[in-house]
Amino acid sequence: MIKSILIANRGEIAVRIVRACKELGIRSVMVYSEADQHSLPVKMADQAVCIGPAQSRASYLNIDNIIAAASLTHCDAIHPGVGFLSENPKFARKVEENGFIFIGPKWQTIAAMGDKVEAKRTARKYGVPCIPGSEGSIEDIEKAYQAAEEMGYPVIIKAASGGGGKGMRIVRDPEDFVGTLKIASSEAEQAFNDGTVYLEKYLENPRHVEVQILADSHGTVVHLGERDCSVQENHQKLVEESPSTVVTPEMRERMGSDAVRLFSGLDYVGAGTIEFLVYENNYYFMEINARVQVEHPVTEMVTGVDIIAEQILAASGQRLSITQDDIKLEGYAVECRINAKAPGKITDYLPPGGFGTRIDSFLYNGYMVSPFYDSMIAKVIVRGKDRNAGLDRMYRVLDELVLHGVPTNTELQKRIISSKIFRSGEYGTDVLKHILAEEE
Amino acid sequence: MIKSILIANRGEIAVRIVRACKELGIRSVMVYSEADQHSLPVKMADQAVCIGPAQSRASYLNIDNIIAAASLTHCDAIHPGVGFLSENPKFARKVEENGFIFIGPKWQTIAAMGDKVEAKRTARKYGVPCIPGSEGSIEDIEKAYQAAEEMGYPVIIKAASGGGGKGMRIVRDPEDFVGTLKIASSEAEQAFNDGTVYLEKYLENPRHVEVQILADSHGTVVHLGERDCSVQENHQKLVEESPSTVVTPEMRERMGSDAVRLFSGLDYVGAGTIEFLVYENNYYFMEINARVQVEHPVTEMVTGVDIIAEQILAASGQRLSITQDDIKLEGYAVECRINAKAPGKITDYLPPGGFGTRIDSFLYNGYMVSPFYDSMIAKVIVRGKDRNAGLDRMYRVLDELVLHGVPTNTELQKRIISSKIFRSGEYGTDVLKHILAEEE
Repeated sequence: MIKSILIANRGEIAVRIVRACKELGIRSVMVYSEADQHSLPVKMADQAVCIGPAQSRASYLNIDNIIAAASLTHCDAIHPGVGFLSENPKFARKVEENGFIFIGPKWQTIAAMGDKVEAKRTARKYGVPCIPGSEGSIEDIEKAYQAAEEMGYPVIIKAASGGGGKGMRIVRDPEDFVGTLKIASSEAEQAFNDGTVYLEKYLENPRHVEVQILADSHGTVVHLGERDCSVQENHQKLVEESPSTVVTPEMRERMGSDAVRLFSGLDYVGAGTIEFLVYENNYYFMEINARVQVEHPVTEMVTGVDIIAEQILAASGQRLSITQDDIKLEGYAVECRINAKAPGKITDYLPPGGFGTRIDSFLYNGYMVSPFYDSMIAKVIVRGKDRNAGLDRMYRVLDELVLHGVPTNTELQKRIISSKIFRSGEYGTDVLKHILAEEE
Repeated sequence: MIKSILIANRGEIAVRIVRACKELGIRSVMVYSEADQHSLPVKMADQAVCIGPAQSRASYLNIDNIIAAASLTHCDAIHPGVGFLSENPKFARKVEENGFIFIGPKWQTIAAMGDKVEAKRTARKYGVPCIPGSEGSIEDIEKAYQAAEEMGYPVIIKAASGGGGKGMRIVRDPEDFVGTLKIASSEAEQAFNDGTVYLEKYLENPRHVEVQILADSHGTVVHLGERDCSVQENHQKLVEESPSTVVTPEMRERMGSDAVRLFSGLDYVGAGTIEFLVYENNYYFMEINARVQVEHPVTEMVTGVDIIAEQILAASGQRLSITQDDIKLEGYAVECRINAKAPGKITDYLPPGGFGTRIDSFLYNGYMVSPFYDSMIAKVIVRGKDRNAGLDRMYRVLDELVLHGVPTNTELQKRIISSKIFRSGEYGTDVLKHILAEEE
């Protein structure tokens, strides 16, 4: 079993991992930038090492410094968290080459799944339904134009190396096709240093539904049901829930076994997610996230499975503590991301409590929210016996949250949770627009 | 359905009830003493009414003022919480006579179960195993002496109106019997204005195990498994857990059906608890608590059932939202009571968070812990997949708790949770003594 873990991250996910280490009796070592000297995970961990100045490039993305910190503190393993270097195959490879365990899948898997075109090809190979589109990257404009005609407009052009909504262009009119393709490719070249683009049929307002996977090195792969992440703002997830209102038990079964088949084929180890778009009662492969996700607590709350603990078990070469038969979705869980709209000092903070309430955060009274990093400062997660009870609880919890000193999106979250359209369960990824219109 | 509830209590249980009201869309009205003007439940409730000075007698035990507050604020119902007036049949009767719903059983039931002799007689009538003892109160000293000889020493003499360890005397030697009986009776006379005592065989270091009951006015009575509350300090519970390490599935089944039969016989409505002593693989009726208990969250965490919400449903005349078949104990939960050893101002407070963690408290930064009331300032509850995982999590959570300004028993709780004897699951109600000796 792993004895000590260096946590190559910051904020709430670092706190989450420190907590798991403490519960498992594993020594935890935090790295931190100069800006994070007084951060909560640094206070909580058994040891902490400064790895550079505030700018991420110089600290949380500085591979050499992180590896050096792991050597210096005699760690066995490195947990990359989410974001930063968590899906960087070069980092994962270097961790391995320096004799540390990388808590995540093999670097080759990360590399393969980071290439959207290859990921889609792999999904198709394992019989996972894919959105109709170019079989690979576009090399011939004429053939691409032909393919777009065949699948029917609107179509979407995507950067092969893209993610998070960047490098995407929708084409609704055949006349715009060639021009938009050229723009998309040069944008991709600029943003990702890779002009490769591919083509897909554009699904108008689908649902974003993803399946959580856990796998060990002994060949066990299980799925933990789905999360619905359709409530988004500028392609950033705001609210995540499980189960989804559009996934039937039969669809869950199919999605789950598709996911297990694909991840088994990848010889995947650890926690991963397969993202789907659900459109008119069908689901289509979108991408694989070869890491734990921000919204993993939602699944923990409905299954009772500790995803971070299982991830660490799997990285240690041990078997998962659960089999597919052990996993049952009980009740309903929902997460709201609390984002700071500006940096500042937390002058008053009292997290909500009580039955069915979970807070994952790194805030404390007097903490300075830094301008250098992600705006998410807290995750509020609740469980309820069903969706209505869960959402009523979430409203109570958001209402109870005391958080002064920085402007936040808490009021927006309350509007979402109490909106008619969200409550109805019938909407697409443009739901936020309708929620904002509802009260006008 | 009840539309507005007056909460005749304070502290964490008041916060618990306000939260339930908010989740159910019920208006909440707090009463408060002058000392509690700035308390958290007062801030959280929709409305708050001062009912008198700090001394409980003048405020939280002041029946007339509480009833007046309920009238003044147009409430439908009164929730008595725990302690204070929660098991006072006069209060329950007056609430009813003034046209309010009392959230609890009928006042006649409270009165009957408050008399320990009658409670035991009732338990025996419904076939619940009782500790061998005098069939009722002791009226003839000679006959009592004879009975003690028959059941074998040690025996215990208890006040019929007693509770919480008061008015109890153990007799180990027949020579001391008559003298001790007279002392016990005169003590009971002084403490409870009722010198009636009764006799029981004394069980040396039993386990304290209780079964949670929910009942509605339509005849449905369900049990929610047991809580083990054997870790006590001066007869005050310190740690509560579910399931118990000494209750087998077969014993749980029998205890549960005994409890359901007894509560059905009482025409009980709402939440209640039956307390047992477990001794050498047998269980014996001790008493009934005709109210919700401090440690109810432990059961909520393993069953997923919201006990306060069900209590309010039942008081509204509605059916429970669950049947016996719906109730499954999943995993393990444990609660540690955090007590203040002295009053004072909270100078720094950050409750722990993360997976499986629940905090029920009324603390906030800057709050003055009052000298007038109960010393319990927070309940820390965790859930885990099994007892070891749950206790590892509890240790993490206790270690994470930031609570400065008043001395607390947090370090004692950490010692308990990490002690060999508690971890072994094999001990009696004197376990604390052994834990304290362990590290010497």
